[in-house]
Amino acid sequence: MTATSQKNWTGDPAQLLRVGEGFRLHDVDPAATPGYEGGKSAAKADLADGAEQFDELQERLFAQSRLDDGAPSLLLVLQAMDSAGKGGIVRHVIGATDPQGVHLKAFKKPTPEELAHDFLWRIEREVPEAGYIGVFDRSHYEDVLIGRVRQLAPPDEIERRYEAIVDFEQRLTDRGVHIVKVMLHISSDEQKARLGERLERPDKHWKYNPGDVDERQLWPAYMDAYQTVFDRTSTANAPWFVVPANAKWYARLAVQALLLDALERIDPQWPAADFDVEAEKARLAAT
Amino acid sequence: MTATSQKNWTGDPAQLLRVGEGFRLHDVDPAATPGYEGGKSAAKADLADGAEQFDELQERLFAQSRLDDGAPSLLLVLQAMDSAGKGGIVRHVIGATDPQGVHLKAFKKPTPEELAHDFLWRIEREVPEAGYIGVFDRSHYEDVLIGRVRQLAPPDEIERRYEAIVDFEQRLTDRGVHIVKVMLHISSDEQKARLGERLERPDKHWKYNPGDVDERQLWPAYMDAYQTVFDRTSTANAPWFVVPANAKWYARLAVQALLLDALERIDPQWPAADFDVEAEKARLAAT
Repeated sequence: MTATSQKNWTGDPAQLLRVGEGFRLHDVDPAATPGYEGGKSAAKADLADGAEQFDELQERLFAQSRLDDGAPSLLLVLQAMDSAGKGGIVRHVIGATDPQGVHLKAFKKPTPEELAHDFLWRIEREVPEAGYIGVFDRSHYEDVLIGRVRQLAPPDEIERRYEAIVDFEQRLTDRGVHIVKVMLHISSDEQKARLGERLERPDKHWKYNPGDVDERQLWPAYMDAYQTVFDRTSTANAPWFVVPANAKWYARLAVQALLLDALERIDPQWPAADFDVEAEKARLAAT
Repeated sequence: MTATSQKNWTGDPAQLLRVGEGFRLHDVDPAATPGYEGGKSAAKADLADGAEQFDELQERLFAQSRLDDGAPSLLLVLQAMDSAGKGGIVRHVIGATDPQGVHLKAFKKPTPEELAHDFLWRIEREVPEAGYIGVFDRSHYEDVLIGRVRQLAPPDEIERRYEAIVDFEQRLTDRGVHIVKVMLHISSDEQKARLGERLERPDKHWKYNPGDVDERQLWPAYMDAYQTVFDRTSTANAPWFVVPANAKWYARLAVQALLLDALERIDPQWPAADFDVEAEKARLAAT
């Protein structure tokens, strides 16, 4: 049973959420739950079921790579406005599987060393090796999002980056990295409520950054920058998915479904032994 | 409530399992469950309870470090003979918390680059930063375990390493890294059964390595090398704990209890805001 064959899904999120021809971010309702008819409590049970499938597929993916350096890997790219729930995805979706098979990287403001290189230099170093599930919490897309909105590079450099990204992701695909790019989409009002909660609760103060309000004031410019990202970089081999994220439970379930879909297409298999099983049984028995 | 105050613990594992003066590995029964009176199913419930405490303490530890580069971190060093269950500890104990606060490193056979440096060079680079829980799956102790048994370095170099390790760990402690060193102790018969199972099941073949039987044949030499490690490197600031591991459920519960004990001694606190909360509420409200 695949995640999306569960009874509460009435449509395939890998189709419904995919950024295709003519996609307009402006038309996406951040409060919607496309393709899912269950509510929050049904989603909890479905997430738990999905976690078991995810865990088994992860183990197979990892196992398959142990004897084959060229085996596939999976890369989840997460982008979003602040407080949209990237951390919750990592914790509740990715956290459901063996951390030994996960390569997680949170990209922060570039260091001087990173800035001295091409913007993809620090990204390339974190691409998951064969068998791993990689997660980018922010990514090279920051360089055409905040990079564009804040004019951190000249316009022609920003322009150059879209194509550089498409080429880069094609190279990754060619060597077996399956890429799933997700934008978690919340409304401006929802962000306001979430930032407000961080200010109300002393145990959440550490998650609050005054800079978040500065970026918030540029909301329309960010939405435009995302639209351009989708127009320029949603490709057949590395598509974007826009996941409505006002309902955290929906966003988690949908991202899990997208990962399960990718893993099922990879269809990883237990590798055959590269030793003589019967001979090893005899050696072991003799000890 | 601390983990060890739960009703099924009759003694404190941080005391019972600690390597102290006069410790003899030979006297430890790998099938025992020191200090725990519940059985396998009680342990499952206790592990789930402990996971909640672990998760909250991890979040506090992480939060505390966000405004303080000198905040403490926690390092779990795992050593064991093959198939003793290191992977299960990572998956079921460490995997219960947010992967974003965990730094996991599995040390393999050193690369030529690593061999060109002092044996602690590759270790130092993986020490957890402030706020992180680090896990070493194998460690610098390999250099005095397989290093000694297989004579991978001259005797005087092996000899030098014990003191170098003690000095190194003292330096880490001094800068706020709390170190918990665990040897998972299984019996030779238990290992034989586990390796046998890997050979029986095609979905476990990838976990089997013919070299495991080679090492197995040197069991007494490894036990001697462990005893020397305990004699030379179990210090007040970085003690060893020997955890009987024939019962996987006990080993997981005990390692969780050791980590909870260390975290409770760190006693991490939510950090105070480094911004004016009321002013930020006003700024947010104005957006």
